[in-house]
This record gives sequence, C-alpha cells and structure tokens, in this order.
Amino acid sequence: MEDALVDKSVDKEFPVFSPGLEGVIAATSSICDLSDTGDILYRGYSIQDLAKNATYEEVAYLLLLGKLPNRKELKKFTSELARKRALPDGVASIIHKLPKNSHPMDVLRTGVSLLGLYDGKHQETSKEANLERAKNLIAQVPVLLTDFYRYARVLKSIGADKTLNNAENLLYMLTGKHPNDLSAKVFNVSMILYAEHELNASTFSARVTASTLTDIYSTITSAIGTLRGPLHGGANEAVAKMLLEIGDVSKAEAWVRAALSRKQRVMGFGHRIHRTAEDPRSAIIKRYARELGENTGKTKWYDICTAIEDEMHKQKNLYPNLDLYTAVVYLLMGIPIELYTPIFVCSRLAGWSAHVIEQQENNRLIRPRSIYTGPKNLQYLQLDERS
Amino acid sequence: MEDALVDKSVDKEFPVFSPGLEGVIAATSSICDLSDTGDILYRGYSIQDLAKNATYEEVAYLLLLGKLPNRKELKKFTSELARKRALPDGVASIIHKLPKNSHPMDVLRTGVSLLGLYDGKHQETSKEANLERAKNLIAQVPVLLTDFYRYARVLKSIGADKTLNNAENLLYMLTGKHPNDLSAKVFNVSMILYAEHELNASTFSARVTASTLTDIYSTITSAIGTLRGPLHGGANEAVAKMLLEIGDVSKAEAWVRAALSRKQRVMGFGHRIHRTAEDPRSAIIKRYARELGENTGKTKWYDICTAIEDEMHKQKNLYPNLDLYTAVVYLLMGIPIELYTPIFVCSRLAGWSAHVIEQQENNRLIRPRSIYTGPKNLQYLQLDERS
Repeated sequence: MEDALVDKSVDKEFPVFSPGLEGVIAATSSICDLSDTGDILYRGYSIQDLAKNATYEEVAYLLLLGKLPNRKELKKFTSELARKRALPDGVASIIHKLPKNSHPMDVLRTGVSLLGLYDGKHQETSKEANLERAKNLIAQVPVLLTDFYRYARVLKSIGADKTLNNAENLLYMLTGKHPNDLSAKVFNVSMILYAEHELNASTFSARVTASTLTDIYSTITSAIGTLRGPLHGGANEAVAKMLLEIGDVSKAEAWVRAALSRKQRVMGFGHRIHRTAEDPRSAIIKRYARELGENTGKTKWYDICTAIEDEMHKQKNLYPNLDLYTAVVYLLMGIPIELYTPIFVCSRLAGWSAHVIEQQENNRLIRPRSIYTGPKNLQYLQLDERS
Repeated sequence: MEDALVDKSVDKEFPVFSPGLEGVIAATSSICDLSDTGDILYRGYSIQDLAKNATYEEVAYLLLLGKLPNRKELKKFTSELARKRALPDGVASIIHKLPKNSHPMDVLRTGVSLLGLYDGKHQETSKEANLERAKNLIAQVPVLLTDFYRYARVLKSIGADKTLNNAENLLYMLTGKHPNDLSAKVFNVSMILYAEHELNASTFSARVTASTLTDIYSTITSAIGTLRGPLHGGANEAVAKMLLEIGDVSKAEAWVRAALSRKQRVMGFGHRIHRTAEDPRSAIIKRYARELGENTGKTKWYDICTAIEDEMHKQKNLYPNLDLYTAVVYLLMGIPIELYTPIFVCSRLAGWSAHVIEQQENNRLIRPRSIYTGPKNLQYLQLDERS
C-alpha cells in the first residue's frame, strides 16, 4: 500500500504541534545518550574515554555492534575495513567523469547512491546484510572523496595504504603524505567526535528513509543530502571562512561585536541540545587544537577562536559547539575547507549505519501528520471560468 | 553548528512516545487535506474534480503555486515543462553507462542526485529557485526513467515529443507508441492520484532533508530512496505480482484465504490514514480500471481484483487503497512491473517539491529526540582487559 501498514491501535488525539519536532520523541535507541550530566555516551561509554584512547575503528565497532571489541576482534575489523576500500570499477570510472567543480558533498551523495547499483544484494535488509554494507561504506566513502578530490584538483591519484587505519589513510589520501603521529591522533579524535549524535537531522532522515524497509544505500544517501545543508554539516566550513576573514586575533572581538550588531549568526556556537552548557565535544577538540597549534608553531587560529569564544560568552552567554575548534584543527592540517563536511560524512557513517540497523531491526513506518492550514472545499471551475 | 539553531523557547517535557510518529503533528501545511469526510483535497480542491477534469500539469501547477492556472497560465506552464525535458549531456551519458540490470528506482535516485551536479545554481533555496528546479525535475525525471529503460532493454532511443503533455509523453517514451485517448486519460488520472498525500514517509523525508536548508536535489533524492521501500512505493508492484500469481478469477478467493491463514499480508489493502473507510483514490481508479478493461476486452485483472476486494472485506474488513486497481491499469497498459514505483516518483515529484518549498519558506530544523534505552556509564577497559 502506499505508505503505511494497517495496525490495530486506536486513533489518538493529536498532541500539540512542536515546530521542528523539538522535544518530540521519535524513537527509542540504545546508541547515543546525550546525558543530563553534559557528557555524551556512545553505547554507554563516555566520549571522553573514547576520544582519549580509541581508534575510529574501535568506535565504529562499538556503535555498530554494541560492544567494545577485544584485541582480536578489533584487529579483524580493522583489517577488514582496510581490505574493503577499493571502489567498484564502474563507480570509479563515473567519479572521474563528473564536472571537476562539483561540490564534494554532491559527489558523495551521488557516489553512495551509485554504490548501491553495483551491489547485487543491496535489497537485503537483515542485520547481517546491513552490517556488511555499513563496513563497505565506512571503507569506501573516504576513497570516493579522495579519489574525486585528487581528480578534480588534477593531483596524482593515490591508492589506499592497507597498513594505515581509517583516519590515517583518509589523511594520507588527501594530502599524499603519511601523517605524523599527532596529526593522525587529532584527526582520529575529530572523526570519533563526529561519529554519532543521536537524532540529529541527518540521522533522523536516514531513519525515516529506513522505515520503509528500503536499502541502506538509500538511507545513507538521504543522510548525506541532509547533512549538506548550512544548518547542519555546513557549519564547520562556515567557521573556517570566518577565521580566515577575521585573520588576526586583534580583530576578533570587534568582528564579533559587528556581526552581532547586524544580527549575523556567529557560526560554531550554540546547539539545540547542548543549550545550557558547553558542548562536551568542544572541550575535547579544543585541547587538541591547542596542542596542534603549539606543535606546528601556528597558534593564530586557536587564539582567534578563544577570543571569539570569550566575546560570545560575554555578549550572548553562548558556548562553542564541536565545529568551532574542529575548524582550527582542519585549518592547521591544511585540509581544503570544502572537504570539512565530507569528512563529517566519513565520520558519521558509523552512527548513521547503527541507526539504520536499529530502525530496521524493530521497524515501524515513520509517518506523522500535518495540521492543514489552507482553504477548504474550493469549487473547481473550468479553465475559461478562472481569473 | 552541527545540527541546530539556538532558539529561545523553553525546554518542554517530552511527550509520550508514539512509535512511527503515528498521530504526531510534524508540520503545518496548506498543501493536502486528508479530510474527515473521506475525501482528499489538494490545496482545497477535491481529487474527484481534479481526476475527472484536469491534466497532470494543472495539478502540478496547483500544488506548486497554490492556485489553479487559468488557460493562459496553464498553456505557458505546459509548454515550459515540455521544453525542459532534455537531460544535460553529462547525465545522459552516465545513465547509458550504468549496469543494465539496475533497479530503475536506484537509477532515478542516482540520476536526480547527478542532476544537482549539472546545475550551477543548485544551492539557491529561494521559493523562485526551488520552483524553477521543481519544474526541471517534473520534466526531466520521466526522461531519466525512459532513457534508462530503453537503454537497459536495448530498445531504440526515443526523444520526447513536445506536442504531448507530461502523462502522454511518459507513456509514449515508454512504449514507443502514441497512446490512445483512453490510455492517456487513465494514465493522467493515475499520475494525479499519486501526486500528493500529505506527510507520507517519502514526503516527510524530503521535508526533514529540506529543513537543513540543503538544495532541492538532495531532498528529492531522499524522497526517492524512501519511496523505494516495500512498505511505501513498492506496494503497487507487489499487487501486480499477486495478480499474475493468482492468474484467474476462480482462484482469487482461495488465494486470499490461504494467504491470510499463513499470515501473509495481502498488498493493496489498508492504510494508516484511511483506516475506517475506503481510500477515496481507490474508487476513482477502480472506475477507470473497469473502463480500460472493457475497452481492451481484457477484464481478467479487474475481475480478480474485485474478487480479492470482496474476500478481504469479508475476512478482514479492509478496504483497497490506491495501489490495488492502479496495478490493473498499468498491467492493461503493458507497463513493465518494475516501472510502477518509478512512475509513482514521476507523479509525486509535484507534491514533494511543493512540500520542500513550503518547508524552506518557513523553516525550522527538524530535530527530534530519542529515549535512551541502552546501558549507562560503562567503564572503558583497555584492549587487553576486554573479554
């Protein structure tokens, strides 16, 4: 039938409408706990511990399978992901025919959709089948991204390095150089912090899509198109552009005041969920941004950010979110700004996939209602009777 | 910021969780009224009148612009759509490189995503920009579909016929023959009936995606991937397969009983919204299915359906939805079954686009919450300490 299963539940009264579904519960989930204490927990584990100790693979395993892997399981999972990186020939050849000026987010949306066409069993939606495809996507999407990027910039094409883990290999394929230990660590931390965040818009879109029991490629394609918007994944790119515009710490305070006085939103601050306290991810990435700045002898971006942070706290009582200091980290690593949101995609794939699996394991079609506010019972007039 | 704007509204208590958001209001909308009287109204006009009198173009204009066009406006709109049908060369050439056994829904999802890459101004999200792109999509997606279909079946490629309206041209490009008046009329009616249906899962996914202020190509890509699922758009295809399996009216009653006794769902019946009465669209398409059957001298599929309908009413007190008799119509027209859901896409494009425009005109990020049901505060153990 068109869009729903019949069920036996009685008709309920419509609750009060909450714009943007703010505060509305849309799922039960055992993946991410945005706890009242201000911490974020993935499957019960604090992101403080995960960021400090784990690789992205470890976190992806945790999100997808619900437990931390032991040494043997992690080794197997890590080498499995490393082996799965190659793109199907058909996909690789199409990626190299796209307009070079394409936005990488559009390329990823198209590329993930294309990957579905080259997977003969993509319509299977069992937990095992979804899990297998989630691993493929976590392995292949970074290669989609770097392959397109190097082709678009007419850089020498680089194959994946099987000895590197996911974060290291992504940095390597972007820059063409093996990252040093600090860069690899910080990049890995940023991928862990971006890996999951409950029912944010892109994850929710993936779950809505998944709820028709469609294939996982469709769900991740939805999520990428949703993350692409400036109110979601685009924010870390906007922060970097702001930092470049400000250019010097001496100008930060005045820049913020001027922006606020013309009602311009200052990016990298505030969060619908982390409203009354700092985004716990911000403190983590801030420490690494500082360390990376000191290590590279370029503290300028970090200093501008702390000045902005002070002023925003004074003027608006707002706290930074994850995007503010992540932009510092990516600027210091020399990552092109238009790749920030695509890197967010590479990271969030683990969370999205975990939600798709969870949705389809205990599925119910997501089909809300709207309140009709238009005209009623208009009389249909024949063409020549209309004004 | 990652996924939300800050707003000033106070924190609200979470309401009771309604699985699948059933009965939950997720938007105000002036597009579709699923009225209590059992009728469906598009922008205040009964679908009875629209199906009887209008072309798909007229309905698309109504949905997108909120009023019925007068003769001059309709002529301009119709010829505009006819002119916009050609695909960008880059897209056409990629479509002809895809695996021939691809599912057409995967091709449409990928093709719409690709169209975004060939639109230099796709990031504009004003009402005017979205409207322009909605018209492009309504014109181009049928060509995406028929181009791929003819390539995959190694049929002679056919260009669009500018003298035909949207429904006629789609039938023409599929079959290679100009449709007779009755076929054109009935196909047009089916496109009108599929054009819009409030916050069904695919439309809702388009609105969730749109709510990050992403581009319209991302939103329609989400909708296609969502419609693809067997709980949503796939149902009319399932009905056709059921009819072919039953094969003869004498076997219908027994088939239904056997299916019900093994708890198999009989497709084409029931609807979460139209629960206590017949789906009003069913009665409309049923009349045309009968007329088309009589006209072609093939009443077999219609007869099987009425037998199924009687038995389902007796056994389960369920009414047919739009998909049941639409499958009869498409079978009689000789449309390959795997194209039924893609034709649903071509039809629903008007409704999806209207919702995207409405969402972005008065936007609020759609970001619900979940209830956390997993373990809390687990202690992070180092690798070798884990079991």
